[in-house]
Amino acid sequence: MIKKGVQVTQRLQGHVPYLPGEQPKHQSKVIKLNTNENPYPPSPLLHEKIVAEIPYLNLYPNPPAKELRESIAHHHGLNQNQVIVGNGSDDILNLCVRVYSDSELKIGMLEPSYSLYEVLSGVQGSELIQVPFSDGQFSFRPEEIIRSGANIFFLTNPHAPSGRNYPLGQLRQIAENFSGLLVIDEAYADFAPENAISLLHEFTNVFITRTFSKSYSLAGLRVGYGLGSPNVVNQLDEVREVYNLDRIAQAGALTALLDRKYFNDCLNNIIEQRTLLSNKFKEYGWDQIPSATNFIFVEPRDGQGTKGPSVALSLFNYLCSQNILVRYFPKHPLTVSFLRISIGNSSDMAILRDAIESWMQQKQ
Amino acid sequence: MIKKGVQVTQRLQGHVPYLPGEQPKHQSKVIKLNTNENPYPPSPLLHEKIVAEIPYLNLYPNPPAKELRESIAHHHGLNQNQVIVGNGSDDILNLCVRVYSDSELKIGMLEPSYSLYEVLSGVQGSELIQVPFSDGQFSFRPEEIIRSGANIFFLTNPHAPSGRNYPLGQLRQIAENFSGLLVIDEAYADFAPENAISLLHEFTNVFITRTFSKSYSLAGLRVGYGLGSPNVVNQLDEVREVYNLDRIAQAGALTALLDRKYFNDCLNNIIEQRTLLSNKFKEYGWDQIPSATNFIFVEPRDGQGTKGPSVALSLFNYLCSQNILVRYFPKHPLTVSFLRISIGNSSDMAILRDAIESWMQQKQ
Repeated sequence: MIKKGVQVTQRLQGHVPYLPGEQPKHQSKVIKLNTNENPYPPSPLLHEKIVAEIPYLNLYPNPPAKELRESIAHHHGLNQNQVIVGNGSDDILNLCVRVYSDSELKIGMLEPSYSLYEVLSGVQGSELIQVPFSDGQFSFRPEEIIRSGANIFFLTNPHAPSGRNYPLGQLRQIAENFSGLLVIDEAYADFAPENAISLLHEFTNVFITRTFSKSYSLAGLRVGYGLGSPNVVNQLDEVREVYNLDRIAQAGALTALLDRKYFNDCLNNIIEQRTLLSNKFKEYGWDQIPSATNFIFVEPRDGQGTKGPSVALSLFNYLCSQNILVRYFPKHPLTVSFLRISIGNSSDMAILRDAIESWMQQKQ
Repeated sequence: MIKKGVQVTQRLQGHVPYLPGEQPKHQSKVIKLNTNENPYPPSPLLHEKIVAEIPYLNLYPNPPAKELRESIAHHHGLNQNQVIVGNGSDDILNLCVRVYSDSELKIGMLEPSYSLYEVLSGVQGSELIQVPFSDGQFSFRPEEIIRSGANIFFLTNPHAPSGRNYPLGQLRQIAENFSGLLVIDEAYADFAPENAISLLHEFTNVFITRTFSKSYSLAGLRVGYGLGSPNVVNQLDEVREVYNLDRIAQAGALTALLDRKYFNDCLNNIIEQRTLLSNKFKEYGWDQIPSATNFIFVEPRDGQGTKGPSVALSLFNYLCSQNILVRYFPKHPLTVSFLRISIGNSSDMAILRDAIESWMQQKQ
């Protein structure tokens, strides 16, 4: 075997890839509350539309996903030249990094937030500016974003992993005074009381990313989209892989988007379960960030009322042993005492509560 | 509306995106011989497997597409750590460019070949070395690749748009003496008499890309893969989007891969039609490159025996007017007098021959 000296670009030396939550096989008996998936299957209307595409799979998909773009534009009251679709919103975030950053043009993000921004920045070889939160409630100072010097700033709203929603006025203040592109990652916005779509009518430097993974129950189909000014959309489109969205993904997402009744029913169930779980945590005396998402970020206390990193880890491990997966982020002081728990259906939530209460009893 | 001075990375100023062949809606009555799609639908076994995934679409796919990787490895007699899968082979080519090129590390390609390499190089801001062919038969001198100075060289084999297959000995000579990574883009290799898989046992600097788009009738599902040394696969994997392949794409590709009988039947039909069309072109007295692909690159002559750019364009336009789409590449002297015609089913090919003969009659 002849080994050669193929070189890897310097920016990737020491690169740490994105680490997703665990994805067990769907056959396994696990309650999966670790990656913020929707507990409900997608709209029953998908079956017919997906099956109809199978005989045409020998043909390339429509490159711009025209029908889907038009429907997304219509849904948000925008023009179709303000919409770009991707193979998950990660695809769109990647395009943003490739178009608006390089070794000179910096990327900004709140730290901690979606760790993918940092991974993409590393791949691109861009300088990353991490703006810290100003308190344990994940508050931030808009001026720090405005004066960050970034050419593109990623702001997750509602925020992950905290679930906190920032008011529109605060986002407007940033958009107005920040000279770069403000990317508002609204992966969870359907679960929130408000969103930033209206800012698109005011500012060309606001770009919003959305996903079908959470509120549309389509994490397994990989469809996301971006909304922005025609100029930004066009710049991203020129770097997009022309066939980034397959035929079934286009048809499936379109069908899910149009079935508003099913969407709303699922959403209402999740919000109802979120309220029940949140009330239960209050009953336990656990601190939590008010959630505008399909998960709750909570600081558990054991049976003796103790909280902290070892308590969070203890509950995490106990739930694992009961085949209940949740997410623990041990690397940051703001997250190390918390767990992020996705909202499941009523039966999953009942099993979760029972397991938590058993753990608390053990820890008395 | 407030406009801001968001900057685009300098490397993208003047960027020319990849231009795919036309994709009409599948309802339209067009004979599509312009993007080398398979004329047959995918294996009938896909229906059941795809339908079985629909209820699980709320869950993320398996990040490494483990089952599919294992089956691809088994199919080629390789280890699973020598396989990476992507959202089309374009995804894999993009990863290659991002890992092995930058402003210092150069990209090489034969010119003309797959124009995407140039597009990806532009997006990455890498210097591109275009090695010209040494004659009108698309021959090249291996030394020019070996001494190109590229860190990564893309060699399409069988070549597109000519359809020519280069002998394994020539590829081995390059692999042995080239110090960079030799990427052999084998999108069309299933239609060819030989391929370069055996070189993977000899050289760590050979990487092969494949696609399910052509021989597996899955252009609409976006699945491709790469084969190489564990080290190269691992480096690419670290930059891959973790959920790049959706659940249905994973299940569909796996099913198509395993249905060898259907695969072989479609392949044999296409090769039979290719022979018939090639013989017809010989009968017309048209020059063609011997094809190892699912298309023929041919230099048409009109009814008076004249050939050249205006003749190729005339036939292209005539076929368009008859709702037969083929591909014309007017930008390069080696391609300007040729048309690239995908192999369809027997009925498509009969209609094509009739149309060509009508055109020749008109041009007498």
